[in-house]
Amino acid sequence: MNLVILRSSEVDEAGQCILSDERARHIHKVLKVSPGRSLRVGLLNGPLGTAVVQDCGSDSVELACTFERERPPEPNIDLLLAMPRPKVMKRLWAQLSALGVGRIVLLRAEKVERFYFDSHVVDPGFYTPLLIEGLQQARCTHLPRVDVRPLFKPFIEDELDVFFGDHLKLVADPSGEKRLQECLVDGAKHRRFVVAIGPEGGWTPYEIAMLENRGFQRFAMGMRVLRTDTATVGLLAILGELQGNG
Amino acid sequence: MNLVILRSSEVDEAGQCILSDERARHIHKVLKVSPGRSLRVGLLNGPLGTAVVQDCGSDSVELACTFERERPPEPNIDLLLAMPRPKVMKRLWAQLSALGVGRIVLLRAEKVERFYFDSHVVDPGFYTPLLIEGLQQARCTHLPRVDVRPLFKPFIEDELDVFFGDHLKLVADPSGEKRLQECLVDGAKHRRFVVAIGPEGGWTPYEIAMLENRGFQRFAMGMRVLRTDTATVGLLAILGELQGNG
Repeated sequence: MNLVILRSSEVDEAGQCILSDERARHIHKVLKVSPGRSLRVGLLNGPLGTAVVQDCGSDSVELACTFERERPPEPNIDLLLAMPRPKVMKRLWAQLSALGVGRIVLLRAEKVERFYFDSHVVDPGFYTPLLIEGLQQARCTHLPRVDVRPLFKPFIEDELDVFFGDHLKLVADPSGEKRLQECLVDGAKHRRFVVAIGPEGGWTPYEIAMLENRGFQRFAMGMRVLRTDTATVGLLAILGELQGNG
Repeated sequence: MNLVILRSSEVDEAGQCILSDERARHIHKVLKVSPGRSLRVGLLNGPLGTAVVQDCGSDSVELACTFERERPPEPNIDLLLAMPRPKVMKRLWAQLSALGVGRIVLLRAEKVERFYFDSHVVDPGFYTPLLIEGLQQARCTHLPRVDVRPLFKPFIEDELDVFFGDHLKLVADPSGEKRLQECLVDGAKHRRFVVAIGPEGGWTPYEIAMLENRGFQRFAMGMRVLRTDTATVGLLAILGELQGNG
């Protein structure tokens, strides 16, 4: 844990905060801080800050927090992800928030099994702690918004423009003739972008056509056929690097 | 499985190959190919090719293979990786071979627990099938060479130059003032490069100094503190993209 994420409801007006859950035990047993020492903290969806440890026991930790005035900018990358196998999605959650994503839409596609959406991995009670784990790893505070959409066509027709109207829209597909760098240079006027990543078996021609009709540009990531989680992590890392941000 | 990896000992001079292991069951049950259909195959550390299915039962599959004349170029990226926790390393193996790595050295560092090296995850009998799984996913044939070195200083002093003498040498560290792209532009004359990735707690100043004395340049990957597996996958993806290869 490189940052302790706090919710604003846990911190009073004077900046005092008492923790008595897993975070307290982690601060006590793993970080082993004693009173007077300081810790990096962050408010969920808010600013970063510092906390001076007032009291630290095995079950309860008392912190005096001060926060920066501005909160860090929201990541400018959103993800339209064909729902991967639940086992893969489980591994992805913390990595997505650590790499920095504004919004995640988990979408059905033809090559996505319908039962994936019955899994507990798309339950907010399951994934929210994993997303927060990723924020605490990466020292970030922006909790990605998550939307789960088990129907492809209605999402594309009715919601895509609402969610991603002004975004530069990119879709990863082996048929793409452009490289990612070219797409980014051409679309430099956009402040946010969304990347669509297909299922293991790829998007169908119908799905690619629907995405293209809505303004998505195809790009290729090279000859290697990567597992969804490897491809997604790789793509977010590349986008971060090409933009020169963190 | 997007490619069936064969060993040269399994294919006779006429290109005939009979499989009766997990691959046969996968071809029969998952790929569900019938005689006359063709499959992508590749020789381990050799060329890619095509196999026409001669016979396909639940326990045995007979293939007639033809291979390309040239084998694909070896990935030009090598990895000097501070040994991650065994659980993390287990997840990494298949992703490393899928992303394409020439050689992997797993190294001790001060912030690496010694017992990590006692784990079965560094046993060739454990990791070789995972590396091959990654090749079969990504449609590649180059099996990364793996060396495990439980002592930092002797490796750096005695073996580093043997392994990576002519390589462009890069080390990921938050103190780096250059971005990766600058390092690559400056080092464009090198045909191969090696990237050193530290443990979760980072390299110590002593370790960084030893690496710099041996020609490593520091670079930073941004402000986010990533888990070893996320950072490694991200870095290999970025290097692949910046080089415009697959």
